[in-house]
Amino acid sequence: MRYVVKIAYDGTEYAGWQCQKNAVSVQEKLESALLSALGTCVKVTASGRTDAGVHAVGQVCHFDMESCSIPPEKMPDALNRFLPADVRVLEGKLAKETFDANRSAKRKTYRYALYDGERDMPLKDRFAVRVENIPATETLQKVARLLEGEHDYKAFCASGSAVKTTVRTVYEVRVEESKSYGGKDVYLYVTGNGFLYNMVRTMVGEILDLAWGKRTEESLRKAFETGNRSLLGKTMPAKGLTLMQVEYEE
Amino acid sequence: MRYVVKIAYDGTEYAGWQCQKNAVSVQEKLESALLSALGTCVKVTASGRTDAGVHAVGQVCHFDMESCSIPPEKMPDALNRFLPADVRVLEGKLAKETFDANRSAKRKTYRYALYDGERDMPLKDRFAVRVENIPATETLQKVARLLEGEHDYKAFCASGSAVKTTVRTVYEVRVEESKSYGGKDVYLYVTGNGFLYNMVRTMVGEILDLAWGKRTEESLRKAFETGNRSLLGKTMPAKGLTLMQVEYEE
Repeated sequence: MRYVVKIAYDGTEYAGWQCQKNAVSVQEKLESALLSALGTCVKVTASGRTDAGVHAVGQVCHFDMESCSIPPEKMPDALNRFLPADVRVLEGKLAKETFDANRSAKRKTYRYALYDGERDMPLKDRFAVRVENIPATETLQKVARLLEGEHDYKAFCASGSAVKTTVRTVYEVRVEESKSYGGKDVYLYVTGNGFLYNMVRTMVGEILDLAWGKRTEESLRKAFETGNRSLLGKTMPAKGLTLMQVEYEE
Repeated sequence: MRYVVKIAYDGTEYAGWQCQKNAVSVQEKLESALLSALGTCVKVTASGRTDAGVHAVGQVCHFDMESCSIPPEKMPDALNRFLPADVRVLEGKLAKETFDANRSAKRKTYRYALYDGERDMPLKDRFAVRVENIPATETLQKVARLLEGEHDYKAFCASGSAVKTTVRTVYEVRVEESKSYGGKDVYLYVTGNGFLYNMVRTMVGEILDLAWGKRTEESLRKAFETGNRSLLGKTMPAKGLTLMQVEYEE
């Protein structure tokens, strides 16, 4: 039986999704909860890795179990009692054997959270990044459009990742603003058919630089053409990033 | 020289503002940072205690120092390097000797954060409380008005606190709603001339009960008249509460 679960996590205390030596990962916590709940080792596959410090409210994972000892709708209750408070199973269901949380994913949406206002705000610092003089939302939205479409995003990808192709389609970059205590919150929602390592965080740095006028449409075009990372702005910190949603074909 | 600082803290890891044995308090962290920065012991007075788990973005404190070795505007930089990330000094200034962060306070505003939507959401759970079927904002706002004004709030006060009078004036209870991922966020802002121990958290529980129809205007009137705690709804958890602002006469 193939199970699919939707999970949420506060990534602050984790070295990312994927299991690794000498570091605590979300995958390890989930597999350990499955071991406690079922008494057997189960390997979990997620829609994709998230980096150290990145959060999720809609990560999707699948795993297989021989017998159905836990009904899928009981999966949240069964696993959450063995999970730490910063990792939660939200939903469980069954899927066809052909479903693969990673390979069947059609669209993913990430959110990057910025705020402008009082510095050192402990209530925001966990999930958002403080940036001074965030450009107006209309300006951000205008330059963000330049990063939409099908492009070779090689320049946006941290070196060292082995992927077949660095061409991806970004369907939308949407900018939302809301007033908040002592300043404003700005969210960038990025939806695409897939993302390279560090791609969203580099996109956000580039959007800020374009909006501030530190980089130009011309330098961005060259970055797409040449794949040269040094033509782009900085990679933004992990803690501002949250995986919001993974979409599959029905 | 009397210094005044504005501070913010994520109260999750603290046993409240006030120093106590066998528990870590925000006051202790601040006094310890002052000791590191100045080399002398300094006693800090806040506008009021906050309970274990309660947060602040606008707590105000004062303390005295013989000589002015640190200019007031440098106080944030001087202290933040010795403070943990969940306690931050936002502003520093000098005040008259007659200024007392506690006794000179004229108005305080607290915010209580609720959310309705997916359960077990690790990105919200730190600073907000999940409540199912939160009543419509207009309904909440209507019943919240019943708790405004000058009243004897004895019934809203946890037993064991020694205060001269339990009469307080609540200037305003304002309800704000915003859409959020998978549900809605509801904030209750309560402004008054002072608050009893657990008062805001009990007010929020009562406002919910009144809006759901579990309690009535009549039972609330009796609670004000008799001071009987059992006539009110439950005390809401600490983690949803944040001290937003303390106002003083100029």
